[in-house]
Amino acid sequence: MSFDRMIRKIIEMKNPTVVGLDPKLDYVPEFIKEKAYAEHGSGFEGAAAALLEFNKGLIDAIYDVVPAVKPQAAYYEMYGWQGVKALYDTIEYAKSKGMFVILDGKRNDIGATMEAYSAAYLGSTALKDGKSEAFGADALTVNGYLGTDGIKPALEICKAQDKGIFVLVKTSNPSSGELQDKHIGDKTIYETMGDMCEQWGAETVGEYGYSAVGAVVGATYPEQLAEMRAKLPHTFFLVPGYGAQGGGAEGVAKAFDSKGLGAVVNSSRAVMCAYQKTNRDEKEYAAAARDEVIRMREDITQYLPQLMG
Amino acid sequence: MSFDRMIRKIIEMKNPTVVGLDPKLDYVPEFIKEKAYAEHGSGFEGAAAALLEFNKGLIDAIYDVVPAVKPQAAYYEMYGWQGVKALYDTIEYAKSKGMFVILDGKRNDIGATMEAYSAAYLGSTALKDGKSEAFGADALTVNGYLGTDGIKPALEICKAQDKGIFVLVKTSNPSSGELQDKHIGDKTIYETMGDMCEQWGAETVGEYGYSAVGAVVGATYPEQLAEMRAKLPHTFFLVPGYGAQGGGAEGVAKAFDSKGLGAVVNSSRAVMCAYQKTNRDEKEYAAAARDEVIRMREDITQYLPQLMG
Repeated sequence: MSFDRMIRKIIEMKNPTVVGLDPKLDYVPEFIKEKAYAEHGSGFEGAAAALLEFNKGLIDAIYDVVPAVKPQAAYYEMYGWQGVKALYDTIEYAKSKGMFVILDGKRNDIGATMEAYSAAYLGSTALKDGKSEAFGADALTVNGYLGTDGIKPALEICKAQDKGIFVLVKTSNPSSGELQDKHIGDKTIYETMGDMCEQWGAETVGEYGYSAVGAVVGATYPEQLAEMRAKLPHTFFLVPGYGAQGGGAEGVAKAFDSKGLGAVVNSSRAVMCAYQKTNRDEKEYAAAARDEVIRMREDITQYLPQLMG
Repeated sequence: MSFDRMIRKIIEMKNPTVVGLDPKLDYVPEFIKEKAYAEHGSGFEGAAAALLEFNKGLIDAIYDVVPAVKPQAAYYEMYGWQGVKALYDTIEYAKSKGMFVILDGKRNDIGATMEAYSAAYLGSTALKDGKSEAFGADALTVNGYLGTDGIKPALEICKAQDKGIFVLVKTSNPSSGELQDKHIGDKTIYETMGDMCEQWGAETVGEYGYSAVGAVVGATYPEQLAEMRAKLPHTFFLVPGYGAQGGGAEGVAKAFDSKGLGAVVNSSRAVMCAYQKTNRDEKEYAAAARDEVIRMREDITQYLPQLMG
């Protein structure tokens, strides 16, 4: 009922990073696509088979270095229900390799509908002969615009099944300030959302001091990372925007506490497309991804001696 | 590139309502479930087959009375990828009967990821041999917490493919005020979000005066409905919360403009579960749903003589 399971893996592996699995077909090497199309046709089924094969290769190459993966739902949904099946298979495969799986779906709704999302991604669904897991992720990103009614149903499942949620607080995009930086009295909206995360999580604080309610805080705003880290002592951070979106390791370091914990930093394209960026043969895409996650771990942990000691 | 297609259907049918298709297994009559389990087993596949059969029966019973349906993604996702396939089949079937399909997914993200969601639900996806529609809905609900970066990718597809989005402005739940009613200067957050809808939609205003960017404004807050109708003249409203959540027809009427247009009112459970609420035989579930949509149309349009004249 907190992020202890993930934190334990981060400590064991001395690596507070997560790899985003956002597999557009453009990122997938030709040899994987050709095989998938030959076996499953060139429609959604073939595309989904290619994504899954690509993901499995990435997971095989990184699971002993990186504690977690973060599949982004949109990139599977765009390939239809066949893509959503590839999402299910990807989650299964990552879990079979011992990885912690954060589903990035930014889901939000109220009451029974939020219960349905929470059952889908974190809990289980009542069927004729008992309950079954639809996707079975370990954590889910959610959007808190609807207030407590949109969070509580997910939190109930987190408590019962040792899962976690990450609430969007301060996102990494250029226009995030249009709403999030506006002031409500003397606080910004993102600070207000951060305070709500502390309140929502209050009863779920685990052995490392963090609750089951984390926050998404973008790496592109280092000052805000530092400020939020100080103000939200029980809220674990998921930090997007490292690398591709311009957030550097020194800035990202501000998301961590004095023990070198409290945050996990995401990288997606830089890992998935490492073979393209380093001009390596596409057959070496998995090895290139492994080199990149090792480079990323070193880049970030150079600022976290407490975690490495 | 606006809601003209939907508005035309509303005028033709003299009915500004939409039926929510949120089919929990509990709502589905036993005879449908037994048949589905016998043919597809009692796991996710059988459950999904039951949902689809239930939805088809509802659509057959209402398509000549109601202009639109609104499937809620959560209730399909909780039944795994098999449930998501039933969502796809439901959208297809509703469109084959001429209905306008609003997918209620409250999706939100930025840049390429929001493009992926928009391709998934409103546009089409690039595959090996050209583009294909993954879900092909007519409109999608979205959450605007991330600002313009989260809306623009969807809006581009709306413009190109004559689709629409509904942005969450003021939701129908009790805790919606925790964030949405807070003041930024002299405006509430929901008013600020409403103003953004007017701006985002400005270049897409259609022949009835409404843009491709609509707003979700809950029926449970009639004063705010009236206030928002007056302040957002080009923003079409999707109004949840009628019936089950306590919003009455007189309050809901405040969402409409002087021509009786500008809003579409949703009802989900009262229609899907009409047979349970009226103690009719479960085999009459579709007939009970039809009676309820006719009752609902009369209840709401009694306040809209302009639309009926």
